[in-house]
Amino acid sequence: MKQLFKHCDILATENDAFRVIRNGFLGIDGTMIDYIGETRPAQTYDTEKDMSGKLVAPGLMNCHGHTPMVLLRGVGSDLPLHEWLFEQMMPVEDRLTADDIRVGNQLALLEMIACGTTSYSDMYFEMETVAENAISAGVRANLCRPVVCLDEQEKYEDNIRAKQSLELFRAYNGAANGRIKIDFSIHAEYTSFPGIIERYSKDCKKLGGRMHIHLSESKREHDACVAKYGKTPAKWFLDRGTFDSPTAAAHCVWVTNEDLDILKEKDVSVVHNPTSNLKLGSGFAPIPRMLEKGIRVTIGTDGAASNNNLNMMEELHLAAIMHNGYHLDPVIMNPAQVLKMATANGAALQGRTDTGALTVGKKADMIAFQMDWPHLVPDFNALALLTYSAQASDVCLNMVDGKILYENGEYLTLDAEKIRFEAEAALKRIYG
Amino acid sequence: MKQLFKHCDILATENDAFRVIRNGFLGIDGTMIDYIGETRPAQTYDTEKDMSGKLVAPGLMNCHGHTPMVLLRGVGSDLPLHEWLFEQMMPVEDRLTADDIRVGNQLALLEMIACGTTSYSDMYFEMETVAENAISAGVRANLCRPVVCLDEQEKYEDNIRAKQSLELFRAYNGAANGRIKIDFSIHAEYTSFPGIIERYSKDCKKLGGRMHIHLSESKREHDACVAKYGKTPAKWFLDRGTFDSPTAAAHCVWVTNEDLDILKEKDVSVVHNPTSNLKLGSGFAPIPRMLEKGIRVTIGTDGAASNNNLNMMEELHLAAIMHNGYHLDPVIMNPAQVLKMATANGAALQGRTDTGALTVGKKADMIAFQMDWPHLVPDFNALALLTYSAQASDVCLNMVDGKILYENGEYLTLDAEKIRFEAEAALKRIYG
Repeated sequence: MKQLFKHCDILATENDAFRVIRNGFLGIDGTMIDYIGETRPAQTYDTEKDMSGKLVAPGLMNCHGHTPMVLLRGVGSDLPLHEWLFEQMMPVEDRLTADDIRVGNQLALLEMIACGTTSYSDMYFEMETVAENAISAGVRANLCRPVVCLDEQEKYEDNIRAKQSLELFRAYNGAANGRIKIDFSIHAEYTSFPGIIERYSKDCKKLGGRMHIHLSESKREHDACVAKYGKTPAKWFLDRGTFDSPTAAAHCVWVTNEDLDILKEKDVSVVHNPTSNLKLGSGFAPIPRMLEKGIRVTIGTDGAASNNNLNMMEELHLAAIMHNGYHLDPVIMNPAQVLKMATANGAALQGRTDTGALTVGKKADMIAFQMDWPHLVPDFNALALLTYSAQASDVCLNMVDGKILYENGEYLTLDAEKIRFEAEAALKRIYG
Repeated sequence: MKQLFKHCDILATENDAFRVIRNGFLGIDGTMIDYIGETRPAQTYDTEKDMSGKLVAPGLMNCHGHTPMVLLRGVGSDLPLHEWLFEQMMPVEDRLTADDIRVGNQLALLEMIACGTTSYSDMYFEMETVAENAISAGVRANLCRPVVCLDEQEKYEDNIRAKQSLELFRAYNGAANGRIKIDFSIHAEYTSFPGIIERYSKDCKKLGGRMHIHLSESKREHDACVAKYGKTPAKWFLDRGTFDSPTAAAHCVWVTNEDLDILKEKDVSVVHNPTSNLKLGSGFAPIPRMLEKGIRVTIGTDGAASNNNLNMMEELHLAAIMHNGYHLDPVIMNPAQVLKMATANGAALQGRTDTGALTVGKKADMIAFQMDWPHLVPDFNALALLTYSAQASDVCLNMVDGKILYENGEYLTLDAEKIRFEAEAALKRIYG
């Protein structure tokens, strides 16, 4: 089917830079964008949609999270980190069944889709059910089951999580015409031992996989690694061969200048998680320095237990302002950088060269913002408006592969009422 | 008229602390709250409103802003501060007419009311028209015309702004049964001279007025004052007698420990402006230290030119997380503190003992949040949910003095369409 969006403002990408087209036309042929321009295309389309008063933008890529943790939103709120994690989070997570995770992820999908996310990267367990959800919901997803190893004597062959990770990869990588990708994943240096990580990293490289890790999120974990191994977590992963596969490194708050050289050299993608880093008191990742060095920075929400939502628009806003405040420099970050982090850079991290920008030939993965709210007047600079003024609730349309998933509050691929009902039942099971 | 809200969760205040009442009842007699409880009141009400699935909370008090600057939203975005202010902002402000300011303020009212603000403090010029707007819109407002003096030789009697400020006070202070208050205002130390400020501060005290100032917003301005006078701006104002009237001091980013002692001693209220301080690269106000010292901290959005919206929910969120990140301490701030800053503390700053909390005998100034969105599930902790997870768009009702101003997207006292139309015309006039 050929669809035409007409009379919309378009946040297009030309020569790797954003260009705002006013009152334009965007054509879709099946799953692909086949026209973007200021004038009506010559060809005809099966359907035409009047998008007056709307801005069409590339879909947001949420590059780090643990979506089923929406079921733990607000649990143990405002406790110190260690107490929160070990006394509140983990006992609940131990109780989660595959069905809880199915429902939790669906609840997260409702939130993410309404907030403009078209593609997300997720690290959790029971990911088969999460893959099935993504297939039916129509979103893109890079999913992983992280390796954790708490017993130094454990053999690689006996690590159940590594086994599950490989099974997940074989079963779902490339599913739904590539909408689903399965990543390899190591939870973090402090939850692993070198031997297993070396073997797992080798398997990742052999199978042509992508890697997703936590890296230097907290000072405590970063310093403990240096004390234990005499090297930073980044150097530790480098020496394990982990970075020999394309890697997404979440947080990177405490990385050193030498670590940044490693990340640049190995083309590691950084996932910036602004809210989580602030809320949990992790600190300020050196994002401006990373951008200066040409490191690929992307954006993620982290899990709802440490955020406490999955609202990418909030993350864009924070990424654009928090470093200004920290460095006492109002121009150290700008909207174009942040929007690129949340779109094209995210696509590159996920190994998706066919999305992340509104350009002819790319996938029709896009969102629309209703732009006639009082808080979006005047519209002198669409990039600034999206970054500083817009709210997630301004998202009025979410499309992936040319298929509308959400429009004006209605979900077209998910049964919101059923999910809400099942979530309540799951919460009763979990918390009694 | 007597109105009953039934089956709502209520963020009530008991003994100066929040208490969440589940599935409760809230009765309103005229402009006042006359019942809050878990059971149906014995008395009868003229109307009953089913509020199932909603949380009723005290209205938000936006304690510092320059509302007509919504007309400058995004102008000169991402320029260095000096260039932005002197080359972009000021030339536009010089062109603003009273009618532009009327329309700009109305546009701001649409935004603020939808985002849950019931009372706001505003510093700008042509404030008679802003007062008239507040009277007809039904909100509470503390308005001021700031004194600026750029000529050291100017006599107090010749300062047109001081004169306008006093005229405004005489004409509108206490209007609309006290909904409108007129504050005295000194723009800042760096835009004034001692003589005029001493005379004006004396007039404020004599007339029993309240004062609204900018204080130590940027390092540059703070340091320049120390260099010029050998004392900090806080000490400078103290010595001018400014703090002899109840004072609202916006920003306070660079205040010293000695300054904090002054603010505490003189019962000065601090207005924290999280987004503005981050976006403009001003820095991190020492809010946790202020709270420790028992200084009254409130919250404001600042103007839309330096924010770039008037969304108090965004400010609550930031106030709750940014200091955790800065101090590497996840529990240095908590939701109850932040919600109190945005409600009861704001009311105290504005000199309004009759609002800012849901308690029997207080004014019926309240907002309701629609709580059944996916991003607000589960609801273990309403305070955490409002602070960390909720969005301004979850506000479904705004009531002041027992009168509904906004409900489910509809404005009951403002003609949104007319305002939008007039704003477009004003923007054309201003920018051509």
